Amino acid sequence: MEKRADALQRLRQAHEEVVLAALRAEGPMSRTRLTERTGLSRTTLFAIISELMERGAVIETGAEDDGRPRGRGRPAARVSLNPDAGLLIGVDLGRRRIRVAIANIARQVVATAVDDSAPDADEAEQADLAVALIRKICEDRGIGLRALEAVGVGLVGVMDAPDRRWRAAERLGAAFGTRVEADNNARLAALAEQTWGAARSAEDVVYVRWSVGVGGGFISGGRLLRGAHGASGELGHVSVDPAGPPCHCGGRGCLEKRIGTPALLEAAASRGVRLTGTDDLLEAARSRTPAVTRVVVEAARTLGTVLAGTVAQLDPARVVVGGDLATLGGLVLDPIREALGELALPGARRPPDVVPADLGPAASAMGGIALMLRKQDPLPPVPDTADL
Amino acid sequence: MEKRADALQRLRQAHEEVVLAALRAEGPMSRTRLTERTGLSRTTLFAIISELMERGAVIETGAEDDGRPRGRGRPAARVSLNPDAGLLIGVDLGRRRIRVAIANIARQVVATAVDDSAPDADEAEQADLAVALIRKICEDRGIGLRALEAVGVGLVGVMDAPDRRWRAAERLGAAFGTRVEADNNARLAALAEQTWGAARSAEDVVYVRWSVGVGGGFISGGRLLRGAHGASGELGHVSVDPAGPPCHCGGRGCLEKRIGTPALLEAAASRGVRLTGTDDLLEAARSRTPAVTRVVVEAARTLGTVLAGTVAQLDPARVVVGGDLATLGGLVLDPIREALGELALPGARRPPDVVPADLGPAASAMGGIALMLRKQDPLPPVPDTADL
Repeated sequence: MEKRADALQRLRQAHEEVVLAALRAEGPMSRTRLTERTGLSRTTLFAIISELMERGAVIETGAEDDGRPRGRGRPAARVSLNPDAGLLIGVDLGRRRIRVAIANIARQVVATAVDDSAPDADEAEQADLAVALIRKICEDRGIGLRALEAVGVGLVGVMDAPDRRWRAAERLGAAFGTRVEADNNARLAALAEQTWGAARSAEDVVYVRWSVGVGGGFISGGRLLRGAHGASGELGHVSVDPAGPPCHCGGRGCLEKRIGTPALLEAAASRGVRLTGTDDLLEAARSRTPAVTRVVVEAARTLGTVLAGTVAQLDPARVVVGGDLATLGGLVLDPIREALGELALPGARRPPDVVPADLGPAASAMGGIALMLRKQDPLPPVPDTADL
Repeated sequence: MEKRADALQRLRQAHEEVVLAALRAEGPMSRTRLTERTGLSRTTLFAIISELMERGAVIETGAEDDGRPRGRGRPAARVSLNPDAGLLIGVDLGRRRIRVAIANIARQVVATAVDDSAPDADEAEQADLAVALIRKICEDRGIGLRALEAVGVGLVGVMDAPDRRWRAAERLGAAFGTRVEADNNARLAALAEQTWGAARSAEDVVYVRWSVGVGGGFISGGRLLRGAHGASGELGHVSVDPAGPPCHCGGRGCLEKRIGTPALLEAAASRGVRLTGTDDLLEAARSRTPAVTRVVVEAARTLGTVLAGTVAQLDPARVVVGGDLATLGGLVLDPIREALGELALPGARRPPDVVPADLGPAASAMGGIALMLRKQDPLPPVPDTADL
């Protein structure tokens, strides 16, 4: 049930977005023309423009000559988007690396950077590293942080503990004096793939990231699914064996326990192939070391079986596979395609496309930007500015 | 990507909804007051009211005395919702029964009815039966069909074949001269439970219906998930045994094959208990016939295991169990709760509430109404009229 204040707030946001969309689409214009263009009353429009000016999102520029007869007095000022505004930063606080991405108001990523993080660093320490990294890259590239509008942060794991999110968000918010939101970094990668990458133009997407852990994110009808506790997308914790070994999530026989890279290294070792880590595993799979190929194909088949259930339930148009293992291409994508072809309602509909992710390791940081873009844009999907 | 015409159409719908919501919340008012209340310009508001009057959704009534000083001339007419308008009909074309539900513009269900259908009737024949049933109930209750605004139709099975939907929609549309939309009837039941029933006030819901077949519907962030081909929610076709027996969907070892009532009757028979049908099965389970109890509990456990995967992935606040088997209460709900408690990220978050459905067998017909209500209401969730 919705309170009146929420309804009004939502209405105001919708009005703001209509104004910003008109300015994005047609460039600077007078308040009179904005009134016609948006269908808002003068009173409403003027109030919204004041607010947007106060926030620095729009500015007043010189007069326009729109060819209309005008009465006496000074010509009408034009309202336009503030070209110095709308800097958005995405941050990914990964297990071993910190990544940042910076985008301008045109939604173009203008810079990315990466730094190592200690494996035992907590979110606050990681956030401090991210702050230093952002300051450095902005100094190097001459990017002014005064225009920073928002920061979106990706974190590892289930977003169940608000204090984890707060610790990271607080540090970044204090450093830059701007609003900060945090979300699961696999879910953010899904959002980035749909905004710029392999899922672009798809409204219904299942994204899975297969590396040390197995995570994911779902987009349905153009919207990222969040869940009641912000924990939607946890593909890695679907149990593939309810009587299997316990998982750190408290469950048993979780997919992640079965196919995460540590499990693959162990399975390869039990078949007599000792590998030192992920790179070694990928290299052995690429050179088609038989035991390793078998381990990877079996794991991909297991992932495909779980994804078949996901696809039966969510009916996506596209399945995007990201993470280290996705770089193996057909070796992992084909067993997934086979499983979907056999198990995901094959008699009733064509299986979804299964494609590798496009954006590489910066996807989650870019997703932090996409998250904040969506916040400003309640109308799904992110519209192409030329079309509105 | 969105075309400009779509964007304008969406803006107009949003404006319409704001006007209708204001009239619903505060009753009849003058155009001047509506301008203030909605933030729309006079031009926009007048255009929208003309359109709504043309469609018969609002009418002009007598003048209001709002206590303001008024100039000369006739007092301002008031605009109000047309009490005779906004009749919505929901139809459920089930395997063996046809159900209809009728609601007024205040979203209250004013009548329901049921009739038998031949098991081999196609959608067009079923639609004809529904038309006759609707005409009869309206005549009996003195409900005028002139005010009918829309019909929402629930159909069995995957909504993959547009022609199936068209056949039913065409017949109903031709009979009543109104717009008709069709959707899967389990998904419509989910929508009804969220609008009036066991999932009311929940934004993130997994609904499963367990009877002859196993179907479902998901609501995330207040929105019903549709999927790329309108086939979201097919819980019954998650494979619980990829090497299992073939299913009519083309897959193997589907949940529905394992726990649908035909499978339960067979399992009971193999344990020496011959049952004649669903009612007999439910009766035996209620009187705790040991073999039948075991069969039902095992099946509920299997459903719970699949739901644990769904819950891990979608993170709902509530799981609603409907259909014949849900009438057994704790006997089926407790094994589901146990499975969720053990397998759905138990270390990371509290499992969702598991509750029986509220609305009974008319849920899908009511969901047809809810579907058409949502169409008129782009702002999620369906607001309580007293709150906006």
